[in-house]
Amino acid sequence: MKLTIALLAGDGIGPEVISEAVKVSDAIAQKFNHEITWTPALTGACAIDAVGVPYPDETHEICMKADAVLFGAIGHPKYDNDPTAPVRPEQGLLLMRKKLGLFANIRPTFTFPSLIDNSPLKRERIEGTDLVFLRELTGGIYFGEKGRKDDGETAFDTCTYTRPEVQRLAKKGFELAMTRTKKLCCVDKANVMETSRLWRETVQAMEKDYPEVTVSYEFVDAVAMRLVQWPNSYDVLITENLFGDILTDEASVISGSMGLMPSASVGEHTSLYEPIHGSYPQATGLNIANPLATVLSAAMMFEDAFGLKEEAEDIRAVVNKSLEQGIVTEDLVVKGGKAYKTSEVGDWLVANL
Amino acid sequence: MKLTIALLAGDGIGPEVISEAVKVSDAIAQKFNHEITWTPALTGACAIDAVGVPYPDETHEICMKADAVLFGAIGHPKYDNDPTAPVRPEQGLLLMRKKLGLFANIRPTFTFPSLIDNSPLKRERIEGTDLVFLRELTGGIYFGEKGRKDDGETAFDTCTYTRPEVQRLAKKGFELAMTRTKKLCCVDKANVMETSRLWRETVQAMEKDYPEVTVSYEFVDAVAMRLVQWPNSYDVLITENLFGDILTDEASVISGSMGLMPSASVGEHTSLYEPIHGSYPQATGLNIANPLATVLSAAMMFEDAFGLKEEAEDIRAVVNKSLEQGIVTEDLVVKGGKAYKTSEVGDWLVANL
Ligand SMILES: CC(C)[C@H](C(=O)O)[C@@H](O)C(=O)O
Ligand SMILES: CC(C)[C@H](C(=O)O)[C@@H](O)C(=O)O
Repeated sequence: MKLTIALLAGDGIGPEVISEAVKVSDAIAQKFNHEITWTPALTGACAIDAVGVPYPDETHEICMKADAVLFGAIGHPKYDNDPTAPVRPEQGLLLMRKKLGLFANIRPTFTFPSLIDNSPLKRERIEGTDLVFLRELTGGIYFGEKGRKDDGETAFDTCTYTRPEVQRLAKKGFELAMTRTKKLCCVDKANVMETSRLWRETVQAMEKDYPEVTVSYEFVDAVAMRLVQWPNSYDVLITENLFGDILTDEASVISGSMGLMPSASVGEHTSLYEPIHGSYPQATGLNIANPLATVLSAAMMFEDAFGLKEEAEDIRAVVNKSLEQGIVTEDLVVKGGKAYKTSEVGDWLVANL
Repeated sequence: MKLTIALLAGDGIGPEVISEAVKVSDAIAQKFNHEITWTPALTGACAIDAVGVPYPDETHEICMKADAVLFGAIGHPKYDNDPTAPVRPEQGLLLMRKKLGLFANIRPTFTFPSLIDNSPLKRERIEGTDLVFLRELTGGIYFGEKGRKDDGETAFDTCTYTRPEVQRLAKKGFELAMTRTKKLCCVDKANVMETSRLWRETVQAMEKDYPEVTVSYEFVDAVAMRLVQWPNSYDVLITENLFGDILTDEASVISGSMGLMPSASVGEHTSLYEPIHGSYPQATGLNIANPLATVLSAAMMFEDAFGLKEEAEDIRAVVNKSLEQGIVTEDLVVKGGKAYKTSEVGDWLVANL
């Protein structure tokens, strides 16, 4: 297969973890006789520095033409203390999501047997957890009208959803549930928000098309609790943008394997794959960041974007092997173990594929 | 002291846990020579059943005239599956908050040494946790304009905040921080929401009035993570209504002592004290619900609403004693222990005061 992949390394440790995912992808391509063309493009703080905007048109063109986008991380501390600065890396992220129509963010949380003791939760609480969030990514309060009134003394944000926006996200949720344990949880705040009531009634109306799927409706505050208490009671969860932002981050730390969690954003055009962790500025350039979440994001890309399941399985298998053998970066080292460098982990994966 | 307390038992287990708090309060009043007049009033599902609305005017009058309100819980399963029903118990709650001007909800999360193993978190993660959320309770998306457009196909909710609304909540946060470790965390989503930017700039401008307080600004998604990872790194947190709803519920389960957590809502008129747990319909009438969160809410009431610190300390001391001696309801029983009834726990507290 001939594959063109847009490579958006981004900021901070982005370029370092992306390098390793490229190495591993190239090795897999060679093994299975595929030909990958990587097209690097700027986004985030590095794009602001270079061309003044965080998601340049040129980058968008490259993404639109590619078969998939592999994304690192964006964000730089110089913007952190001033969320009101006129140009910020996050704006690039939001613009990219909107322009690529990436309406569904898919974020699995699962456990690795060898890492279960890294979890802040007790073993019996976290064991067996294997859930997936589908977070709506191009609507809600992120993109609604917002501003100031009364000489700046009053601020407002509008959360808006249309029925078709809910339907297309929910459809992906039902379909995903069908491939798993057929359990779907719709997370909302229907006792307070009108948008949530639209979500709930829309999902309820779709239930008849998926008679095998058991759907539950839970309030976002209740889910925030149960994720800590009994994460393994969930399977597929669908929710709106802001709730998804909060809950997927909460879910990401319960497994203790945050440095390993991949994600995908899919929608109307090219799909995008990225680790869920951020740009981790303190570690930039030190060759210590964990590349595995990005490598596993590449695996998701092979499977979901290219339909190359065997390739994906091979990547996951070698990652598992590296975990079992303790070929890991410092964040995953257990007492007495050795901390490998970012690039050493990548090299080991390639050598063991 | 002569004290008039409005007694809003509410639904489900509300009346059962309230009874025990009344017993304990009466015993304390007797010991310290106070005279309490309890004025019961309807709210929630029971008020809908009786008079058609969840927060009747008469109840409001009683609350306005009282020195404090002691509240049980509201909610009934017959409304749970239909958040669009025209009259619902939660509406009573929201109306009550608004009409009583209860703009600050104070929710501590702390650990009891004897209960630490109940936490879903590992001991080393949760030990020493002692944080307080101040959640804004009468603004934001809960009370903004909301509705439908396009023949019901589009729904919207508006989140609005004014600078004075932020100031009065933040002021309470700074003041509380001054009585504790002088650490204040402002939780927002200033990288996305305009209301959050107003929050942040308002709190930033207040910093100079409290030079001893160290203020940090964190995004809501990051806080949702760190609450699970390092809850003991927080002290006082302030936040807007919806974030507070989600995060305080998340925080409530990390200690493993949810059945023990009290809360207060304060503002322009009479203050209100209530356990953070819900109406727990499955347990209604079984005399098994844990009354301690309500008893500890009464302690908060004595201290904060009436300035009766010694009385509050006495209540807390006897609650601690009951925990140490295992005089607890089934939710807190450790292996081999005996499960006491709701009323037995209350009786024991009274006998041991
Ligand atoms: C950086 C920020 C705008 C973004 C979001 O809130 O969506 C991030 O938290 C995420 O989840 O990808
Ligand atoms: C019942 C509901 C409207 C309420 C809220 O969201 O405020 C509840 O969750 C709470 O936190 O008191």
